[in-house]
Amino acid sequence: MVIALDVMGGDVPVHSPVEAAVKAATDFNQEILLVGDRDQVVSELAQHSYPQKLIEVFHSSETVGMDESPALSLRQKKDSSIRVAVNLLQEGKVDAVVSAGNTGASMATAKFVLKLISDIERPAIATLMPSTNRNNPFVLLDIGANIDCKPSYLFQFGLMGDAYARTVLNLENPRVALLNNGEEEGKGNQIVQDAFKLLERSTLNFVGNIEGKAMFQDQVDIVVCDGFVGNIALKVAEGTFDFVRSVLKQEVQASWMARLGYLAMRGPFKSLKDRADYSEVGGAPLLGINGVVIICHGNSKPHTIRNAIRHARQCAELNLNDVISREVSENLNLIQEGSENLSE
Amino acid sequence: MVIALDVMGGDVPVHSPVEAAVKAATDFNQEILLVGDRDQVVSELAQHSYPQKLIEVFHSSETVGMDESPALSLRQKKDSSIRVAVNLLQEGKVDAVVSAGNTGASMATAKFVLKLISDIERPAIATLMPSTNRNNPFVLLDIGANIDCKPSYLFQFGLMGDAYARTVLNLENPRVALLNNGEEEGKGNQIVQDAFKLLERSTLNFVGNIEGKAMFQDQVDIVVCDGFVGNIALKVAEGTFDFVRSVLKQEVQASWMARLGYLAMRGPFKSLKDRADYSEVGGAPLLGINGVVIICHGNSKPHTIRNAIRHARQCAELNLNDVISREVSENLNLIQEGSENLSE
Repeated sequence: MVIALDVMGGDVPVHSPVEAAVKAATDFNQEILLVGDRDQVVSELAQHSYPQKLIEVFHSSETVGMDESPALSLRQKKDSSIRVAVNLLQEGKVDAVVSAGNTGASMATAKFVLKLISDIERPAIATLMPSTNRNNPFVLLDIGANIDCKPSYLFQFGLMGDAYARTVLNLENPRVALLNNGEEEGKGNQIVQDAFKLLERSTLNFVGNIEGKAMFQDQVDIVVCDGFVGNIALKVAEGTFDFVRSVLKQEVQASWMARLGYLAMRGPFKSLKDRADYSEVGGAPLLGINGVVIICHGNSKPHTIRNAIRHARQCAELNLNDVISREVSENLNLIQEGSENLSE
Repeated sequence: MVIALDVMGGDVPVHSPVEAAVKAATDFNQEILLVGDRDQVVSELAQHSYPQKLIEVFHSSETVGMDESPALSLRQKKDSSIRVAVNLLQEGKVDAVVSAGNTGASMATAKFVLKLISDIERPAIATLMPSTNRNNPFVLLDIGANIDCKPSYLFQFGLMGDAYARTVLNLENPRVALLNNGEEEGKGNQIVQDAFKLLERSTLNFVGNIEGKAMFQDQVDIVVCDGFVGNIALKVAEGTFDFVRSVLKQEVQASWMARLGYLAMRGPFKSLKDRADYSEVGGAPLLGINGVVIICHGNSKPHTIRNAIRHARQCAELNLNDVISREVSENLNLIQEGSENLSE
């Protein structure tokens, strides 16, 4: 199994991804194909000692900048590192792609080159969120790939999230919920209400609506929402963490006892940080396309990209996309019904 | 100035509101009219010593339960405590209403009896959210009154939030932002994009889009969103706090040093809790109706309801609704343009 790593994207191109690849090769005995400018990659690799037969380089001459238009780059940069990596996946020369580059460009390229899984209308980006149960994070999707969604998309996100939870999280009968402004049936905007009607008739273990507060309390395994709401939910959670950290730092200055207490609590604070931040998982899977593509933040540290390589291998090894296809075919009547209702 | 307090609603009816009224009368020298079952209220009042000339009772024979349908209760319970309180406001016999009862029923009753401020299409519920600057919370609206919104509603929420910030928060030129999944213009769903175009041409100090993370960082004073997104943002923030508290409690058990640290940090944790939770403000104003109505959670403690009474007085004294009307008339062309575009 070979993972292609786009090394030209991200805030610290070449340097961070190469360090991540060296770690992943060493720690996981993983074959990696580094895609990017050969000269830069080779000279960066020379700084490291690593299992040489596990890491190879594949040259690409172009780079998509972090702020470039995904549509333009897709049309104009046919030899960009992300395009070349995805082409290799499409040709079956690698088994998965990891990128910390321009998220929009990675998504557009993957969708264009690899196409969607049959009967899936839109891809979604999923992420793990922490719950109060250390061993039970939950999957939140979509977190930004689709801003304006139809009910049938939300239904398909439920299927894809379920497949992900069954394979990568190894859950037997994951609980699927719809993010909503109340728990009662009939809550939510029209799109969410219509999605509810599809979800409740599906093969999924659909547990109904969940509120933004309760979802952290280990009541659900998959939380479905559109990318607009998902992005805001994710960012509000991050903002609240930052707020807590910032306020405690300010308040601790008020007394020497509090400062000592802060030191004594370094362990719990470290654990909190680790549990809150899923960099251990490494990246977010782009679900719904024919192929495994893991997307990392542009500012990901090498450790996170290393883990994303392992994450990509898992998705490929566990045949995540076969499970998605199976769930789609088991619910095909609902998918078709949902899409037809919408085109009326 | 007299504040009517609906004592029949809430999780601890009569008891909590009466205690709150006694505190408010004592602490703020505030005249209060308790609306509810006279016998129950009088016997509850007898448990307290309080400035007798400040508190009076107005009998109502019915109660709207916390789970009752707002529409049904509006039609069938014409002598409910909330209906009677709002009627008194409409007749000019009191200056504001505070309720910790069924939020939907309070909203429906207020809208039906008092009507909307001229050219306002929908009322909104606003709440204060904390920022990293202790002295600068921000106003988030709508947090649940309107699930499916049109761009013109969001625009009007901006005007109402601005009027609230200018009066109650005493800000001179508050920064108004639109909650979005990115900062760049053109981000967001179609409704948010259209609302952007109205906001940027208004008299407001519109600073553009804000993400769910950055809004906590003292960059804005008013954050506008629909009630679906606002509810989820608010609940995610609450859920994240609970998560932090729960994890720290779990982790602290791991070592005696951490437990001591936790004790030594009681002060900062207390400050964090106070800053995070705006019960000091007391309740959430229902903006956009002809009259001051403050809504509290059903589970509000007497201290919060006491503060809501003060909050109601402030809104009435500062003529919040006159300021809303003025802002509406200054932006009337945009309001009309927004509403017309939508009916196409």
